[in-house]
Parts: sequence; C-alpha cells; structure tokens
Amino acid sequence: MTADLTESAFLAVCRGERPTHVPVWFMRQAGRSLPEYREIRGPGSINHAIANPDLATEITLQPVRRYGVDAAILFSDIVTPVHAIGFGIDIKPGVGPVAEKPIRSAEDLSRLRVLDPDVDMPYVLETVRNLVTELDVPLIGFAGAPFTVASYLIEGGPSKNKALTKSMMLNEPALFAEILDRLADMAIASLTSQVQAGASAVQLFDSWAGCLSPHLYESHVLSASQKIFEAVASLGVPRIHFGINTGELLPLMRSAGADVVGVDWLVPLDVARARLGAESILQGNLDPVLCLAEVPQVEAEVRRIIASNDGNDRWIFNLGHGVLPETNPEVLERVVDVVHAEGHLAWA
Amino acid sequence: MTADLTESAFLAVCRGERPTHVPVWFMRQAGRSLPEYREIRGPGSINHAIANPDLATEITLQPVRRYGVDAAILFSDIVTPVHAIGFGIDIKPGVGPVAEKPIRSAEDLSRLRVLDPDVDMPYVLETVRNLVTELDVPLIGFAGAPFTVASYLIEGGPSKNKALTKSMMLNEPALFAEILDRLADMAIASLTSQVQAGASAVQLFDSWAGCLSPHLYESHVLSASQKIFEAVASLGVPRIHFGINTGELLPLMRSAGADVVGVDWLVPLDVARARLGAESILQGNLDPVLCLAEVPQVEAEVRRIIASNDGNDRWIFNLGHGVLPETNPEVLERVVDVVHAEGHLAWA
Repeated sequence: MTADLTESAFLAVCRGERPTHVPVWFMRQAGRSLPEYREIRGPGSINHAIANPDLATEITLQPVRRYGVDAAILFSDIVTPVHAIGFGIDIKPGVGPVAEKPIRSAEDLSRLRVLDPDVDMPYVLETVRNLVTELDVPLIGFAGAPFTVASYLIEGGPSKNKALTKSMMLNEPALFAEILDRLADMAIASLTSQVQAGASAVQLFDSWAGCLSPHLYESHVLSASQKIFEAVASLGVPRIHFGINTGELLPLMRSAGADVVGVDWLVPLDVARARLGAESILQGNLDPVLCLAEVPQVEAEVRRIIASNDGNDRWIFNLGHGVLPETNPEVLERVVDVVHAEGHLAWA
Repeated sequence: MTADLTESAFLAVCRGERPTHVPVWFMRQAGRSLPEYREIRGPGSINHAIANPDLATEITLQPVRRYGVDAAILFSDIVTPVHAIGFGIDIKPGVGPVAEKPIRSAEDLSRLRVLDPDVDMPYVLETVRNLVTELDVPLIGFAGAPFTVASYLIEGGPSKNKALTKSMMLNEPALFAEILDRLADMAIASLTSQVQAGASAVQLFDSWAGCLSPHLYESHVLSASQKIFEAVASLGVPRIHFGINTGELLPLMRSAGADVVGVDWLVPLDVARARLGAESILQGNLDPVLCLAEVPQVEAEVRRIIASNDGNDRWIFNLGHGVLPETNPEVLERVVDVVHAEGHLAWA
C-alpha cells in the first residue's frame, strides 16, 4: 500500500509551502556509514547490490528507519544507467566508478547507446516499486548530470583535475556536446522511469560541475542539464539540482530549471539567497567532514546553520555533500533531532 | 649587481599604480613542466634541490628566461621551514609533503620549535641573495599559511577531506590555535628573512583554506594569517594572499591584511571586484587545467579573461593555481605573449 504523502514536510518545502517542520535528509544516508548496511551488503561490486531489488530496497530503508529522515533516496549510483547499457564501467570499492575504455574519440560514442530503463535496468524500477509500498516518506529518484557522468567516462575514473574532460571540452566541443547530449537523454529516460514507478521527487547530481568557471559551465554544460529539467517538468515532481564548489554557478544551476538548489558548506544560506533571490528554495549545507567531530561540536554547527537560515521556511536541511563512510551514525541521529526540534523555531 | 626595479610592472600594480603593461607570472612556473628543470634537477627529494643554492637559483631563473614573466618566485616549498626545524616532513615525488609523525596531541607541539632562518635554512637566504643579483624582475618570497601547513602536519600528508584537521579545529580549538600560532611565527620569521635578503614581495599560500566555511575560517584561521600580514607590513613590500575555492572567503582574506588578493578561475574578475571593492588589486585567474588544451583554445581563454577584467589596471595575470607538471611550456609562452600584447589595450 502506498503511503499518503500529503503531509510530507519535504514535499511541502519543494512546492514552496510552509511545512510542519524543517525537513532533513542526507545525501548518501544509505551505505557504508551504517553498520546494518555493512552487515547485509556482502562482498562484490556495489552494482550487484543495486541489481538486487530486495537488497537495494532494504538498504534504502535502513537510514529512514534509523534517522527518521523526511525523505528516502534510492540506493543506486549515478553511473548505473551507463553500466546498464554495457558501456563498461564498474564501481571499485574505495575508488569509485572506473571505465575500462574511456571515451577518447567519436568512435567510442557507439558504446553510449539509448537507455531503455524497462529493459536495461528493470531491477532499479522494481526497487522503486518496492520502496513506495514500504515508505511513509517520499522517495527521491536521481540521475547523474551529464557533465559529472561524462567526467568519469572521459577520465576513466575519479580525477582530481578533470584534465582530459576540460581539454576535450575546449579542443573538441562538438564531441563533448554529443557525449553530454546522449547522457542527458539517458538521464531523462532514467528519471522518467523512476517517477513513473513511484518516485516523488528527483535530484540531478552534478557533483563536479563546480570545477568549471561560470563561463565554461554556461557554454558547454548548462544546455544538457537544462534539457533534462525541461523534459522531466511534465512529470509534476520537484526537481533538485546539486553540486559542490558551485557558489558562482548557483544562478545558472537554477536557470537550468531546478525547483530546489543544493548549497554546499562554503556558501552561507543567506549568501545563497542573496545570489538566487529570497524566494529560492535551498537544500544544504552542513559540511559532511564536520560530522566526524564530537557530538556537541556538530550540534553547535547545526544550530549555527539554523541561525544562518534566518527563519526562512524554504529550506531542506542536508549535508553539503554525501555522508562520509567513517561517520558515526549517532552523530547524524542528533543532527536530525536538532533540526526537527529547533529548525522551525525562528519562523516568523 | 642588483637590478633597478623602479619600472617593474608587477610592483607598480602591487602599489596601486598604473604599469606599462599587465604583468604576468605563474605559480609553480619553476619546476616539473620545464624540460630544462628536469635536466638539471637530478634524483632525490626536492628538499635537496632547495638546500642547494646554486641549483635553486638556476631553477628559479629558468622560467624567467624562458617566459619573460614579470616576476620570479623563489624555488622552495611551503613546508621548507617545518622541514628545516626537524619536524620530520619530506616531500615525496608525485605525492607531496608527508609527515612521519603527524600532530595528534599537545605533546607533538615540542617538534614545532621557533624558526631561526639564518641558522635553520641559510641555503634559502643564500638563494635569495644570489637571485637578486641575477634577476632583472622582482623576486617574490613566500610562505605557507598556517592553516594549509597545519593540514599537512595534522593529516600526515595531502588529504582530500582534511578530516583530521577540521575535527581538531572543532574538538580541540586551543590546540589547533596553538599550532596555527606557532606556524604563523615561523612564517613571519621566514618571510622577514627573505625580504631582508632581497625579496621584493611576499605571497602567503593558503591553498586549502577554501575547504572551510567563512564562519570556520573567520573563527579559527583568520587571526593567524592576520598576525603574519601585520608583522610583515613594516618590511614595506607588497603582500599577496592566495587560495583556491575561496570565492566566499575573499573579503576575509583581504581583511587579513593583503595588498593583493588571489582569485581562482571559479570567480570571474568582475565578481571578485564586486565582492572586494573596485579598488582592490587582483591576481589571477586562468584555470591551470585549461593550459593542457591546444594553443588557440588557451589563447581564447586568455582573451576572455582580459575582457572580463574590463580595462581595470589593478590586475596581475596569473593562473588560478599552480602550473601542472604536464603543461606544455609553449602554451605558457603564448599566454605571456597575449597578456603582454593585449592585456592593457582596454585601459581607459
């Protein structure tokens, strides 16, 4: 049975309505930081866990049960669609996505074929369908943004400088644009299928876009992300746009079509609102690294962020980036409690 | 014989005067990107090259000869003073500074003793004295800022998240402050000795400060850097303050006492001026990664940055971070030529 989400604080904020309390969830709330995850996950690639709907469902539910967060996020990965079409990419433990044969020329485009979610990744959609019968909070579906996914396909793996990606962007702009366009189409297909299977919101992860100047982002990246947000608009669910080091990109990222804009810990919430407009809906922005400190110190940081929000009800509390694997879950439990108890007290 | 630097374009800009042309130099202009460096450098730790004044002098001069840049920067390292007092830190090829025994508690402070540059690192000062007789452009001396140097001493080496550093900052603020204060005193001693030996300007490298929220920077880092800028003010040379990912920190970094503020490639020059005031003197901001692209593309980026400067004469062209080892020196030669030929054409 699907839960009644009309009272969801998370969805209320996404719609621009005042919620009962400040909603909170954490990027990477499911996964390695949880002992119950490490217990059931087993060895092998994370792709095996993603391809197992019972396991992926349970992993997605674990942090919702433990933390009482206001939203679940599908346990999956931004390279899952690319993996599903057989591009040749694996997620290596402790490393991240690694492509066997990175994209070096237009010939490699043949491995970036059209995604048919029902055929290529039915397990993801089965997980979504399972989840919406189990959850009493909204499920957030997601996709990797074209730039960030492309960086893995071009570099061959995680990369400090994104040197090959930026070089291709400048030296071969047509090839670069074609890669991003194909990845945009894959993201559209993936997000659409997740929403049709029951996801209540979508987040586009452009985790690494913040390595680009606003000029390069606008010239080479924005249109592909915009294409995604426009295509999923008709699905009628809130759209969140996320990245880090994006202080200068925030207005462009919202212009791509997002309803909610992620803010990292470098940009105070009031500064983000000054840049985006007071009516903007923000998600953020506790530094996940600070969650490795002791509980009283973390609580003080949470209270400082609540104060920096200055009583604005258009705010979803989150980390500025994903939960680090070495995080003590008890710290995150306290974060949720403090946000739920105190986040709304300053509302006018 | 020491050169007459009264016509130096670099120093003119630092003093707020209109120069003959837009000055340009590159962070890490000396070093691995140059074949002539790789030829003379030999094996062994970079500390051996730094400790050899003849070699360090020649390495510093190489990019000045090749590129015709408007300033030289001493070939040394931000951890050289800490190395010199026997803390136990080496610079591992391809890795960076690695500390044998990272700072874990107040007991480790005994290894952070007072620096006496004449006794502890006479080779650095001999290199400076050599250089000022050879150079016909100003020599920039430098030091690592307390936060950035502390991050190596606390983490034990380069670190993606600075997790131990941030945790100590929150959990043990008094210990953290003591480490930064000692490192500030070392930076003051080092910079003072470099200027007394003939350096014409100083740059404080706070390369990793941009991982901090403005709140944490202001609460835990600013005062130590401020102490350095105040102490070296009486030396009468321009003071440059540099970091990356510092878009939100720029006003605080200038308030530390800098005459010139470094701007990374994420922050357009006009945005930096809007944040710092129109009279501010900026240094930046070409993305060093873009220098791996082909020459026409790099030239176009340089021209775009010149245009973004909008005819302001308070600007030193530089990269937003150091030259990458794999950079083709011919690209940087073209960058210098374009800046020198076109940088000043828009001046009113």
